[in-house]
Amino acid sequence: MSFRIEKDTMGEVQVPSDKYWGAQTERSRNNFKIGPEASMPKEIIYAFAYLKNAAAQANHELGVLAADKKDLIAKVCDEILAGKLDGEFPLVIWQTGSGTQSNMNVNEVIAYRAHVLSGGKLTDDKKVLHPNDDVNKSQSSNDTFPTAMHIAAYKQVMEVTLPGMEKLRDTLAKKATEYNNIVKTGRTHFMDATPLTLGQEFSGYVQQITNSIRTIKNALEIVCELALGGTAVGTGLNTPKGYDVLVAKKIADLTGYPFITAPNKFEALAAHDGMVELSGALKRAAVALMKVANDIRMLSSGPRSGIGEIIIPDNEPGSSIMPGKVNPTQPEALTMVCAQVMGNDVAVSIGGSMGHFELNVFKPVIAANVLQSARLIGDACVSFNDKCAVGIEPNLAIIKQHMENSLMLVTALNTHIGYENAAKIAKTAHKENKTLRQAAVDLGLVTNEQFDQWVRPEKMVGSLDK
Amino acid sequence: MSFRIEKDTMGEVQVPSDKYWGAQTERSRNNFKIGPEASMPKEIIYAFAYLKNAAAQANHELGVLAADKKDLIAKVCDEILAGKLDGEFPLVIWQTGSGTQSNMNVNEVIAYRAHVLSGGKLTDDKKVLHPNDDVNKSQSSNDTFPTAMHIAAYKQVMEVTLPGMEKLRDTLAKKATEYNNIVKTGRTHFMDATPLTLGQEFSGYVQQITNSIRTIKNALEIVCELALGGTAVGTGLNTPKGYDVLVAKKIADLTGYPFITAPNKFEALAAHDGMVELSGALKRAAVALMKVANDIRMLSSGPRSGIGEIIIPDNEPGSSIMPGKVNPTQPEALTMVCAQVMGNDVAVSIGGSMGHFELNVFKPVIAANVLQSARLIGDACVSFNDKCAVGIEPNLAIIKQHMENSLMLVTALNTHIGYENAAKIAKTAHKENKTLRQAAVDLGLVTNEQFDQWVRPEKMVGSLDK
Amino acid sequence: MSFRIEKDTMGEVQVPSDKYWGAQTERSRNNFKIGPEASMPKEIIYAFAYLKNAAAQANHELGVLAADKKDLIAKVCDEILAGKLDGEFPLVIWQTGSGTQSNMNVNEVIAYRAHVLSGGKLTDDKKVLHPNDDVNKSQSSNDTFPTAMHIAAYKQVMEVTLPGMEKLRDTLAKKATEYNNIVKTGRTHFMDATPLTLGQEFSGYVQQITNSIRTIKNALEIVCELALGGTAVGTGLNTPKGYDVLVAKKIADLTGYPFITAPNKFEALAAHDGMVELSGALKRAAVALMKVANDIRMLSSGPRSGIGEIIIPDNEPGSSIMPGKVNPTQPEALTMVCAQVMGNDVAVSIGGSMGHFELNVFKPVIAANVLQSARLIGDACVSFNDKCAVGIEPNLAIIKQHMENSLMLVTALNTHIGYENAAKIAKTAHKENKTLRQAAVDLGLVTNEQFDQWVRPEKMVGSLDK
Amino acid sequence: MSFRIEKDTMGEVQVPSDKYWGAQTERSRNNFKIGPEASMPKEIIYAFAYLKNAAAQANHELGVLAADKKDLIAKVCDEILAGKLDGEFPLVIWQTGSGTQSNMNVNEVIAYRAHVLSGGKLTDDKKVLHPNDDVNKSQSSNDTFPTAMHIAAYKQVMEVTLPGMEKLRDTLAKKATEYNNIVKTGRTHFMDATPLTLGQEFSGYVQQITNSIRTIKNALEIVCELALGGTAVGTGLNTPKGYDVLVAKKIADLTGYPFITAPNKFEALAAHDGMVELSGALKRAAVALMKVANDIRMLSSGPRSGIGEIIIPDNEPGSSIMPGKVNPTQPEALTMVCAQVMGNDVAVSIGGSMGHFELNVFKPVIAANVLQSARLIGDACVSFNDKCAVGIEPNLAIIKQHMENSLMLVTALNTHIGYENAAKIAKTAHKENKTLRQAAVDLGLVTNEQFDQWVRPEKMVGSLDK
Repeated sequence: MSFRIEKDTMGEVQVPSDKYWGAQTERSRNNFKIGPEASMPKEIIYAFAYLKNAAAQANHELGVLAADKKDLIAKVCDEILAGKLDGEFPLVIWQTGSGTQSNMNVNEVIAYRAHVLSGGKLTDDKKVLHPNDDVNKSQSSNDTFPTAMHIAAYKQVMEVTLPGMEKLRDTLAKKATEYNNIVKTGRTHFMDATPLTLGQEFSGYVQQITNSIRTIKNALEIVCELALGGTAVGTGLNTPKGYDVLVAKKIADLTGYPFITAPNKFEALAAHDGMVELSGALKRAAVALMKVANDIRMLSSGPRSGIGEIIIPDNEPGSSIMPGKVNPTQPEALTMVCAQVMGNDVAVSIGGSMGHFELNVFKPVIAANVLQSARLIGDACVSFNDKCAVGIEPNLAIIKQHMENSLMLVTALNTHIGYENAAKIAKTAHKENKTLRQAAVDLGLVTNEQFDQWVRPEKMVGSLDK
Repeated sequence: MSFRIEKDTMGEVQVPSDKYWGAQTERSRNNFKIGPEASMPKEIIYAFAYLKNAAAQANHELGVLAADKKDLIAKVCDEILAGKLDGEFPLVIWQTGSGTQSNMNVNEVIAYRAHVLSGGKLTDDKKVLHPNDDVNKSQSSNDTFPTAMHIAAYKQVMEVTLPGMEKLRDTLAKKATEYNNIVKTGRTHFMDATPLTLGQEFSGYVQQITNSIRTIKNALEIVCELALGGTAVGTGLNTPKGYDVLVAKKIADLTGYPFITAPNKFEALAAHDGMVELSGALKRAAVALMKVANDIRMLSSGPRSGIGEIIIPDNEPGSSIMPGKVNPTQPEALTMVCAQVMGNDVAVSIGGSMGHFELNVFKPVIAANVLQSARLIGDACVSFNDKCAVGIEPNLAIIKQHMENSLMLVTALNTHIGYENAAKIAKTAHKENKTLRQAAVDLGLVTNEQFDQWVRPEKMVGSLDK
Repeated sequence: MSFRIEKDTMGEVQVPSDKYWGAQTERSRNNFKIGPEASMPKEIIYAFAYLKNAAAQANHELGVLAADKKDLIAKVCDEILAGKLDGEFPLVIWQTGSGTQSNMNVNEVIAYRAHVLSGGKLTDDKKVLHPNDDVNKSQSSNDTFPTAMHIAAYKQVMEVTLPGMEKLRDTLAKKATEYNNIVKTGRTHFMDATPLTLGQEFSGYVQQITNSIRTIKNALEIVCELALGGTAVGTGLNTPKGYDVLVAKKIADLTGYPFITAPNKFEALAAHDGMVELSGALKRAAVALMKVANDIRMLSSGPRSGIGEIIIPDNEPGSSIMPGKVNPTQPEALTMVCAQVMGNDVAVSIGGSMGHFELNVFKPVIAANVLQSARLIGDACVSFNDKCAVGIEPNLAIIKQHMENSLMLVTALNTHIGYENAAKIAKTAHKENKTLRQAAVDLGLVTNEQFDQWVRPEKMVGSLDK
Repeated sequence: MSFRIEKDTMGEVQVPSDKYWGAQTERSRNNFKIGPEASMPKEIIYAFAYLKNAAAQANHELGVLAADKKDLIAKVCDEILAGKLDGEFPLVIWQTGSGTQSNMNVNEVIAYRAHVLSGGKLTDDKKVLHPNDDVNKSQSSNDTFPTAMHIAAYKQVMEVTLPGMEKLRDTLAKKATEYNNIVKTGRTHFMDATPLTLGQEFSGYVQQITNSIRTIKNALEIVCELALGGTAVGTGLNTPKGYDVLVAKKIADLTGYPFITAPNKFEALAAHDGMVELSGALKRAAVALMKVANDIRMLSSGPRSGIGEIIIPDNEPGSSIMPGKVNPTQPEALTMVCAQVMGNDVAVSIGGSMGHFELNVFKPVIAANVLQSARLIGDACVSFNDKCAVGIEPNLAIIKQHMENSLMLVTALNTHIGYENAAKIAKTAHKENKTLRQAAVDLGLVTNEQFDQWVRPEKMVGSLDK
C-alpha cells in the first residue's frame, strides 16, 4: 500500500495515496478500531453533503466565501450524493461523541476532491480549499453534526418509515373493509369471548398504525429544526449575520423538506431531545406493530392444532427438518425488528440524557440508532405487507366452527335474565360439555324460541340498538 | 376478626364484616398476595368514581337505569372522591391483567355502600344495587379499566406533571433573563470552550422543558379518548345506542377535561399505545431534566476544587461524617426520578407490546407506571424548583476567573489569522503555561492592539455582526 | 399538631413532638415532597438496624464506644426490627442520592429513643447518645447506605425470591414427572410441529427456573460484600483498625448470612455493580418466567376455540360482563411482574452507570428497584404456584385429538424416504385435507404397513434408538 | 446478471449463476429486504462451519453418514472458516425467527460447493450432497441456530471481550500501583470530600472491571451448553443414539472450547436465557465502564477551568472550529459503546422473553445484539487502553493545589472535637474564605500545633491506626 503525507495542527500523518481523506480522518481510523469499519451511517454522510453545499451557498451570499470556492464545494457534494465517493468515509460510530471526525472527514474529502477536480494533485502541499477555513466556514462540528442528524433522520422517516407504515396500514384497512361481515369469536385473556367481525379486529390494527404515524409526524416538528449557525457552543461565533436562517433555507431548498433554524441553539447542541422524541415515537410504533404481528402470527397458527382463523402466504419451506411446514416468517421478522427498536430507544435515551454543559457527546450513537430504527420499521412494514398482509385470507370454515362453539355468546342473555343466571348457563354448558342452547333450556332459564331470538352472533357485534 | 358471607357466581366467600367490598374483591385479596396490599393506585380508584357516576347518568338518560339507582351510585362516587372510602380498595396492581378485580371492587363497594346508605345492612342477602347488573351496566372491565387509566393519567399530568414542569421552566426562564450579561466560559466535551452567557446556558434548559411540555401535551390528545362503550371486545355489546358518546361527555363534564369517546374501541381495548406514548413523552422529559439537573449539579461543584460557577442553596447537612459539607441533593433527587421514569417506560412499553387479540392484559402495570412517572416528574420539578432553582446564584468571581483563563478565546482569531495559526497560539499557551495574549504576541502572529480588538469575550457570545 | 425544637449543624428545626426523629429527618421531610411519604423501603430501615447494632458492637470491642452506649443502641435496634418504630421513618426514596438522610433518620431515632429509654425526655437539650458521634461512629452515609442495600437485598432474595422460585420449580418438576408419558403435538413458530411429551415440555420450564436460581445465587456472591468500614470516600478514615472485617462479622452473626467486608471499599462506594448484577439476574429470571407464564396461559386457552391442552384452576369470575368466563389471571399477574422487573432493571442500570468519582448518588433508586423486583418475583411465584401451577391438569382428550391430527408426524419419514418426499406427503395432506396416512399411501410413497411401523408418535419423543 | 434454476420443496427459483447458494437462500433474499444485505453476523456463519463439520463427523462415527460425504463437508467448512466463501451468505438478521434460512444458506453452500469441489457443475440437477438429507443430517434449524449462537458468542467473548477488558484492567492496575502515594482530594456528590490517593481511586476501577469479568465468565457456563441433538422440538427426533454428547465433543475439539451438550434440550430451543444472561453480564460491564470512562473524562477536564487532575493523551485535533482544543475522545467512544450495550440488553431481554411453546423465534436478533455488545466492549476497551489509559499522567500541581484547599480535611477533627465543632470550622472557613487552619484557630477550637498533628492528608487515606 502506498501513502502520502498529510498535515493537520498536530503534525504529519500517512494517508493511503489513493484516498481523498486527510490527516484527521486518518487519525480517527487509527484511533478508533471499534467494530467494523465505516459504520457511521451513510445517511449521515449524505446529509453532510446537503449541509456543506448549503453552508457554502449561504457563506457566499453573505459575502464570506468566493463564488469559485462555493461552486467547487457544490460539485463535490453532488458527487457524494450520487454515491461516487462512498469509499471515502471509513470512520466508525464509536469515535468522538461530537462526530467531529466525521465532519472533518467530509471537510477533507470535499477540499481534496475539489483540488483534484481543479486539476491539482493530492500530494500538493497547498490545496484550493482548506478543510476548516473554507469547507467548514461558519460551522463547527458541534452544530453540523446535529444538523446532519436531523436531516438524515427526517429524510429516513419521510422516505422509508412513513411510506412503509402507510402501505401496511392501507392494506390492513382494505382487509378491514373486506372482512366487515365475517363474524368470529372474540378473544380476551387469550380466552374465548363475545363475537366481533374479522373486519373490526383488523380495524384496530389500522387505528394503531394510524396513531403511530401521527406520533411520528408530531416528532418531526422538532427534527426539522436545525442547529446550524450555533457553531461551537450555540452563540453563533464566527458566523455572519443572518446565516442561521439562510443556511436552513438553503437546506430546505436542496432537500425539499421544511427545515428551519432552531429557535434556541444552546439546546440544539447540548441536548438531542428531538431525536429522543423521534426514537420514542418509533418505539411506540414498534409496540403497536408487535401487537399486530403477534395477532397475525397467532390467528394463522395451526394448521390443525392452533387457532387457524386466517391463512397467510407460504413463502418458503419453514423447517429444515419438518417437511411441508410453513411458518409465519414475516411476522417473526417484524417482531424481531420491534424488539430491536425498543432496545435502540433505550440506547438513544441514555445517550440523550448525558449531555453536559454546552454539548451532548453521544451524537453518533443517537444518530445511528434512530436511523436504524427508522429504516428497520419502514423496511419491515413493506416486507410484511408485500409478503404477508396482502395475501391474508380468512379461513371461513374454522371461523364458523369456533364461532358456533363459543360459550361467550351467553353474554347476550345478560340484559334478559341477568348476569348470574347467564353465568349458570355457561358454566353448565362447559362442565357438561353441552351447547349453550342445551344448557339454557335444560336449566329452564330460556326457551328455545328465546334463545333463537336473543343469541344471535351477528347482532352481537354492535351496540344494543344496532 | 369477624366475617360475613358474600356470594358471586362461583359461590360463597367470607368477607370482613366491616368492609363494603364483596366476594370478588375478597377472592382477589386472597389470590394475589404479591407485594404490599392496596398497591393499585388511588388515582385509578378515583377515576373509576367519575366513570361509574358518568355511566349511571348515561344509562339513566338512555332509559336503562332507574333514577334512584343512578342517584345512589352518584352519592357513593362522591364519597369515594371525597376520600371517605379509601380503606375499601385493598387490591394490588398484580392481579388479573384486565383490572377486572379492581373494577369489581369498585362495583361492589358502590353497590353495598349504597345499600347501607339506603338503610340496609351488609348482611342482607339482597342489596338495592347489583354490582354487575346495575353498577357495571353497559360496561365491562375491558372498557372501564382503560377508561379509568386514561382519566387518571390525564388528570395526573394536568394537575401534577405539567404544573411542576411549568413552574421550573418559569424559574429557569427568569434566571436566563437575569443572567443574560454574565459572560462565562463554555464547555464542550467537559472541556473549556468558547464563551457564552450564563443566561444563554439557562435558556437551553428552558427550551428543553418547553419542548418536553409540548410533547406531553401532544400525547394527551390520545389519552383524552376513552374506551368506554366498547364493553367486552370493543363492539359495544349490551350498550344502548349513543351510549359511548354520551358517557364520554358525562365524564368530561364531571372532570372538567375534554374527554371524548375513542374513534375505534377495538384499538382502545386491545392496545394501550396512547399510554405508551404518554410514557414515552414523560421519558423524554426525564431525559431533558437529567441534563438540566446534571448541569446544575456540576456547575455548583466545589466549593474549592470543582467548577463552582453557581451557588445553590444549602438545605441540609450534606454528610454524616464530613462536617460542613453541602451537597446538591435536589439535583440528585431529580436525577434519580429521571432514572426511574426511564425504567418505567420500558415496563410500560413491554406491557403495551403484549396485547393479544381483543385485549391487552397488562393494564394495571401500564397504569401504575405511567401514574408514578407523571407524579414523580411533577413533584420532583416542584421540589427542585422551590428548594434549589429559585435560590441559584452566580459565583461571579469564579466565573470571571475561568473566563479570563480560557484558551478557547483564541477561536475569535480564526477569521483573522486562520485556524492553523490560531491553533499554534493555543497550543503554545497551553504548553508553556502562558496567557493567550503572551503566546500570540510571542509567536508574532498578533499584535497587542489586534489582540485587544479581536479577542473580546463579550463580543463572542453572538454571531459576527452582533 | 405540637412541635419541639431540634438542632443540627445548620440550626433549629421544628419537629413533631411525639416523634423520635430529629432535625435532619425533619429537614428532609420538608425538602423532598416527592411521591407518597415513607417510600424508602422498610427493608432498608431494618437493614440499618442490623448495621447500627453491629457497628456499636465493633466500636465497643475496638475500644471506641462505651458499653452502656453500645447496649442502648442494641436495644433500639431490636425495637426497630420488632416493627415497634415503623412510624418513625417518614422519608422518601427521592432524597439525597447517598441516602444520607435515611442514615441520619436512623441515627436520630436510635439516639433519641435511647434517650427516652434511659428516662430522658425528647425535649432535653442534651441526649445520652449523639446521632453522629455515637450512633454513626466509624461510619458515613457513604458506607452505611450501600451496606444496608446489600443486607436488605441479600435477605429479600434469600427469604422471598429464592423460596418462591424454588417452590414453583418443584411443583413444575413434579408435573414434569407426572406428565412424562403424555405424548402431545409440539409447536414451533406457534405452528404444529413434531411430538413431545407434556412432561418434556414442563421439564424445559424447570430447567429455566433452575438456571435462573443459579444466576441469582452467583450474583449474591458480590452482594454479600459490605462497604462498611470505607466511611466517607473508601479510605476508612476515622475507623479503628480491624473495624471493617469485624463489623462485617458482626452483621453476619446478627443476620445469619455470610456477609464479609468488601475487598475494595472505593469500588463499594462509587459503584453498585453488584446490585446491577443482582438486578440483571432478577431480570433474567423475569425473562424466564415470562416464557413459562405465557406458555401456561396459551396452553390453557379456550375453552373451545383455543389450544386447550391443559386446564388451570378457576379462581374467580373472569369477567364483569361475560358470565361464566374464566381467565388465566395468575399467569397475567406473573407476566405483569416480569414486565416491571425488566423495567426496573433499566432504572437500576442507569442509576448504576452514573456514579462519579468516589460516590454513586443513585443509591436509593437502585435499592428500591432491586428490592421491589426481588419481592415481586418471590411473591408472584408463590401466588402462581399455589393458585395455578399446583392445580394444572392435562386435558387428555384435546391433547389426543391435536396429536392425531398433526401433519408434522411426517418428519418420522425423513430418514426412510427423504425430506423432499416427506414434504410432498405433508403438503398433499394439508391441501386435500387428508390424513397423513391417506396422503402417503395415495402418493404411493409409503405402504400402510410402513406407515404403521414408521409413524409412531410415542417413538418420536426421543432420539432414533430410544 | 445470469441465473440458474434451483429447486426446493416449494418449486423452482432463479439463483445468480455464480453463487453457491440455492433456492431457499434466494427465497429469503427476496422475501426479507429489511436493512442492509448480509447483516447476519459473520460470526454466526463461522460458527455454523464448526457445527456442520462436527455434525458430519458425529454422523459418520455413528454410522449414518458416509466417509466421503463427511470429508466433503469438512473441506467446505474449512473454506468457510478461511473466509473464502464470505460472499455466499447474503441473508439478513430480519428473517425467520428460528434462523432457518441461514441454516439452509449454510447447508446449500456446503452442498453445492462440495459438488463443485467434486468436479460437478452448479447447474447439475443432482448434487453429491443434499442440503437437508446430508449436510443437515441429525439436525434442525431449531437446534443448529442456537448452537451456532452459543459457539459464536463464546468465541467472541473469549477472543475479543475478555482480552480487551483484561488489557484495560491490567493497565489501570499498573496505574493504581504507580499512583499509590499521590494524595488528592476525594469527591462525593461531585463535591470536595476527604482525601484519598489517586492509586486508591484507580483501584476502584480495577475492582469494577475484575468483577465484571467474573460475571461474564459465570455467564459463559451456560453458553457452553449446546442445543445440538435436540432437533425440531428438543426430543432429538431423527438423531442416532449418543449423537448429542458426541457432536458437542466434536465442536469442543474443533474450537478448543469446553462445549458440552445441554442438559435439557427443550429449554435450549424454547428459551435463550443463557444468552440473556450473557447480555446482562455485558450490560453490567457497560455500567462499570461507563463509570470509569466518565471519571477519566471528568478528571482530565479543563485544561484551565475544569478539574484537571490527570492529563490524557492528545490524539487528534478536538474541534473543527476551536483551534488547539483537545477532547477526551476515547472516553466518549467508550461511553457511547456502553449506552449501546445497555440498549442491546433490552432488545435481547424482550426477544428472550417471547418464546412460545417449543421454540423461541427471536434467535437472530438475540444473537446479533449479544455479538455486537461483546465485540464493542472488547474493541472499545482496547482502543481506550491503547490510546488513552496507558498514557494517563497525573497533573501533580493541580492535585496538590486542590488537596491543600480542601475544606473536608476538617473531618480529621471529628474524633478530637466532635462533628458539630468540626462543622463550625468548615462553615466558617467557607463563608469567610479562610483556610481551615485559620478558621480553626480563630474559633479557638484547635491550636496550631493540634492542627499540624491532626490534619495530615497523608494520614487520612487509611483507617485510624494506619
